[in-house]
Amino acid sequence: MERIRTDQVTSHVGERVKLAGWMHNWRDMGKFGFLVLRDGAGTFQAVFDKPAEMEKLQGLQYESVLELEGVVAEEPRAPAGAELRDCEVRVISPVLEPLPFEINKKELKPGLDIFLNHAPLGLRHLEKRALFRISAGSATESGANVFQIDYCGRPAYVAQSPQFYKQIMVGVFERVFEIGPVFRAEKHSTSRHTNEYVSLDFEMGFIKDHTDVMAMLTEVMRHMFDRLTNERARELERLKMHVPTVGDSIPSFRLLGAQQLIFERYGEDCRGEPDLAPQHEAWLCEYAEQELGSELLFITHYPTSKRPFYTMPDEEDPSLSKGFDLLFRGCEIVTGGQRIHSFQQLHDNAIKWGINPEDIDGYLQAFRYGMPPHGGCAIGLERLVMQLAGLGNLRESTLFPRDLDRVSP
Amino acid sequence: MERIRTDQVTSHVGERVKLAGWMHNWRDMGKFGFLVLRDGAGTFQAVFDKPAEMEKLQGLQYESVLELEGVVAEEPRAPAGAELRDCEVRVISPVLEPLPFEINKKELKPGLDIFLNHAPLGLRHLEKRALFRISAGSATESGANVFQIDYCGRPAYVAQSPQFYKQIMVGVFERVFEIGPVFRAEKHSTSRHTNEYVSLDFEMGFIKDHTDVMAMLTEVMRHMFDRLTNERARELERLKMHVPTVGDSIPSFRLLGAQQLIFERYGEDCRGEPDLAPQHEAWLCEYAEQELGSELLFITHYPTSKRPFYTMPDEEDPSLSKGFDLLFRGCEIVTGGQRIHSFQQLHDNAIKWGINPEDIDGYLQAFRYGMPPHGGCAIGLERLVMQLAGLGNLRESTLFPRDLDRVSP
Repeated sequence: MERIRTDQVTSHVGERVKLAGWMHNWRDMGKFGFLVLRDGAGTFQAVFDKPAEMEKLQGLQYESVLELEGVVAEEPRAPAGAELRDCEVRVISPVLEPLPFEINKKELKPGLDIFLNHAPLGLRHLEKRALFRISAGSATESGANVFQIDYCGRPAYVAQSPQFYKQIMVGVFERVFEIGPVFRAEKHSTSRHTNEYVSLDFEMGFIKDHTDVMAMLTEVMRHMFDRLTNERARELERLKMHVPTVGDSIPSFRLLGAQQLIFERYGEDCRGEPDLAPQHEAWLCEYAEQELGSELLFITHYPTSKRPFYTMPDEEDPSLSKGFDLLFRGCEIVTGGQRIHSFQQLHDNAIKWGINPEDIDGYLQAFRYGMPPHGGCAIGLERLVMQLAGLGNLRESTLFPRDLDRVSP
Repeated sequence: MERIRTDQVTSHVGERVKLAGWMHNWRDMGKFGFLVLRDGAGTFQAVFDKPAEMEKLQGLQYESVLELEGVVAEEPRAPAGAELRDCEVRVISPVLEPLPFEINKKELKPGLDIFLNHAPLGLRHLEKRALFRISAGSATESGANVFQIDYCGRPAYVAQSPQFYKQIMVGVFERVFEIGPVFRAEKHSTSRHTNEYVSLDFEMGFIKDHTDVMAMLTEVMRHMFDRLTNERARELERLKMHVPTVGDSIPSFRLLGAQQLIFERYGEDCRGEPDLAPQHEAWLCEYAEQELGSELLFITHYPTSKRPFYTMPDEEDPSLSKGFDLLFRGCEIVTGGQRIHSFQQLHDNAIKWGINPEDIDGYLQAFRYGMPPHGGCAIGLERLVMQLAGLGNLRESTLFPRDLDRVSP
């Protein structure tokens, strides 16, 4: 059954529906109980009366992530005028630790400082959430190859990517996007890298796996290309730029299958290598265009060890990841995948990747308090334009490129 | 006469019109000459045959900024199917130095490195301009209270504002906006300041003076407030947030007049002080709301010495600037004004303000090669939301606030 969102429920009276979200409130009345489920759209009330189902909620803290099935019934006393009955529940991400403060009351009690210390949780409060549907923001992150700044006497880092923060915000809104500059201290100079670029990021919760992200990205690419074609016709003509059409789906290969194809078609044996070289990407795109009629191509299942620590391993072979790259005319322009949503798995992975969990405590907080299966990706704006315009160097599609040698104008 | 843009000319056949833009090309045939004028919309051909008018173009380099009046005539041989005849010209910003390379040919000759060294000029090439109508970007700037980063062994700075770059881009597109994070190393902790905020910036060329910017900002505020009211009704209700209506114009006071008003109405004599204290801003907004029915209020003509070196002084009294602040419910949320567009004036002002012109060479380049009268402003997103929601601290309207004490989560 397809999951629907809480704001769609009332148009399904009499039907059995599936919801998913956070355990916002639970009142156990003995023989029955009222659950309030919160998702990105709002909240909805569900009535439990089967002891076996009520049992499953025992010991769970608020903010646990649940999947819920039930029959929609009109009920004038319920806040939405309807409620879910005959409920069955499945626990997706249990929260076992008590929350540092209540977030399901009308007022948020803690002072500003305590709130800010626990922003990944506190932002889920309905009033905070409403406020940041009106505003928006960005933030900095530490990591590898970052620029260090002297931050009032302490070290801090310029945003390398909005990754951590967009995942935190999945816990608040389910779906988020960000467009902003990111900075990489690249120690080498290549035609595909600069030190500052614009990253088009999105992240979405309650996914089945990485293919949901790939399907969404396919829509996004189609939408961008259509708007370019319709709204920038004059510029496209001046630049003699050909914008591809995106079909219903973009062809997809596993890395190993792609390497096998290169071996068979081009004679080079790169099977088992952890990544594709630029020449390999060029061959694969040539194949996709000639044989599959697509200028875009997904490559999935890169080795888990070569992807970031938060990448979800494939259940069937955990040495392979549920991550993907999108290639376009011979160059990778997007990286994405499903992320780990279990606190324990993420915590243990950080250690395995040599990251001290204390250094990413703010990020891990979101996972301590219930995160749904989620994933997302980041499109490199200048790379996309470089490939669209057929330019040979990323510096040509970057407004004011920054690299080893250039910091002005 | 109102200036029109080059893409509007052909609908005025037979009429006398006014254009303004850059001297893109000039062919002097002796008894007559062909001028190609470029503006943000495109290019247009004008025929000169009066010796006195042709004389004015003598010695001018391409990229000089011109205002042009003439009669629109159909002419099948002209690129647009029409041309301007019986022309009179006014030189707004003369360029006297030869350009480092030609930007009015189909191909841009210089290599990537030379191009990037002269990006403020080179980006005006029609093909480059088309490319960056498709992409977009951002950049860093140095200045006071900036965060210094170790940039591959050299010092560099995190963006304090996109000011220099949006001015450069006025030379390319006439009108630009940017939404992005900016960073200030605030050494003090106040409820109105954080170290990172989102700046909503715009900048526009070919203005009469700062009042054109104020009129545009009035439209922008009205548009934002209308969209909030229409598209975020649920969130506004949850937050009990009242969104003001913006009238045809927002009341405006000169600083000295505002100080006089405070003296007369509230008894405090701050006349002649270079800036308003928070209490003064609160009083002025109270007055504007009670007596003028507006929750928004412009203050103009702050002392030139207290504004940035690029602020245009008032011709009648150069000790006062053509800058403005916009106050909203007792707090400044926007700063803007007309900027200096003459290279010499800007260069000399930099020295007067203690800035070494060599340190801002990339920025000054744009002015060396012809800049029109222009101005713009920057809206502080979190301040705007703080005032809209009636919050007491900027940290409450900032998603992940950064200050002296807080760098995570």
